[in-house]
Amino acid sequence: MSTEKCFAKGSAEPGPVPKDQIRLYSMRFCPFAHRARLVLSAKGIKHVIVNINLRDKPDWYFEKNPLGFVPTLETPAGEVIYESPITCEYLDEAYPEKKLLPLTPFGKAQQKMMMENFSKVMPYFYKIPTGRKKGEDVSELEAELVEKFAKLDEDLAKKKTKFFGGDSITMIDYMMWPWFERLEIFELKHCLDGTPKLKQWSECMMEDPAVKATTHSMDTYKAYYNSYMDGKPNFDQGL
Amino acid sequence: MSTEKCFAKGSAEPGPVPKDQIRLYSMRFCPFAHRARLVLSAKGIKHVIVNINLRDKPDWYFEKNPLGFVPTLETPAGEVIYESPITCEYLDEAYPEKKLLPLTPFGKAQQKMMMENFSKVMPYFYKIPTGRKKGEDVSELEAELVEKFAKLDEDLAKKKTKFFGGDSITMIDYMMWPWFERLEIFELKHCLDGTPKLKQWSECMMEDPAVKATTHSMDTYKAYYNSYMDGKPNFDQGL
Repeated sequence: MSTEKCFAKGSAEPGPVPKDQIRLYSMRFCPFAHRARLVLSAKGIKHVIVNINLRDKPDWYFEKNPLGFVPTLETPAGEVIYESPITCEYLDEAYPEKKLLPLTPFGKAQQKMMMENFSKVMPYFYKIPTGRKKGEDVSELEAELVEKFAKLDEDLAKKKTKFFGGDSITMIDYMMWPWFERLEIFELKHCLDGTPKLKQWSECMMEDPAVKATTHSMDTYKAYYNSYMDGKPNFDQGL
Repeated sequence: MSTEKCFAKGSAEPGPVPKDQIRLYSMRFCPFAHRARLVLSAKGIKHVIVNINLRDKPDWYFEKNPLGFVPTLETPAGEVIYESPITCEYLDEAYPEKKLLPLTPFGKAQQKMMMENFSKVMPYFYKIPTGRKKGEDVSELEAELVEKFAKLDEDLAKKKTKFFGGDSITMIDYMMWPWFERLEIFELKHCLDGTPKLKQWSECMMEDPAVKATTHSMDTYKAYYNSYMDGKPNFDQGL
């Protein structure tokens, strides 16, 4: 876990990446960057994290990634990789010691279809809290989210496995986890009440060493989230 | 190329996929399904195509792909794969004889980043023609598209290669091609006027055997497109 404060506009660009490492440009509370942090940790890849102030980005960051998003990876050879699923698959292929994706073409395709499906669940984690803040009635959105969770629950029940890719953690679990870790902060934890398998999955995930190594205390999460919802995100919250 | 008329609601479900083949559920004019047809053709994979009536889908099709989209692949083992980039990568891995994706993790990541970037160009191919049909001023959208094309042109100029992945065709070229093949039908061909490298790429693509094997005559394309814009797509146009 990085304890480095974020780099903002005007900050000096970090030098070249040391030979035996990989650099991750991240933001400590970003769920997309969290995916890459989970994969780095789970695979035991030697890395260094550079946090970016996403509201006041350094000019040099746009030279690495013209979109300015996190996560971005940079190798000692100066290769740059961005978009969270692409960074995670890259890490799994470039560091093949402990594979997180299945080895068969169909197994890999299945995980990608699950991820595509999950990408349609993600908008609810933004729409519901922002709707609530505006005083809107979000009960319909919550009902839709509960339905999506029921589908995921059914999926686990059919497979009869603890995780989405089998009885041990694989890539798809890490790709979905960052949003589940934030359910309490989004005040959406009750949406798991009718989905026992998904709740159990979530409990198993919390026991995983990579999950433990990349988390924040609930107080830190909440304080960051409040600052974010107030339009003044404190990217260095808790440091 | 399939000459089979499309399967609509009420049609009989095709039987199991023969042992030495793969089945593609497609629609003859769908650019996303076109990606999979290009890859099947380029790699010389023995396949059979089942065309789906996308306005009146057979009930059995939703059992294969709950989203009801094309393309979908089905194997003799009953494995089902959908979402066009996932189907194409699956084909490249499951039939490794003539690889279309680079072999290195970074080479693969680069192609995926280019594809992600291209996914932001695609909406213009829909927004401009539908805007025109409604009589809206689309000059601003066209200017934006020209700018996106200029970026792609610059990319080719920097690489000094004929294609986006080098001097021979690779996956990324096939992933982008279906929309360029349709530029004339979209009445957007003039947007290539200021981008000589991209225009040259487009001309090279038209010489490719897989591109030739999966195309339609301009008359057939135009007649289909008119039927589509009138809200009554004739999926069997030209058969």
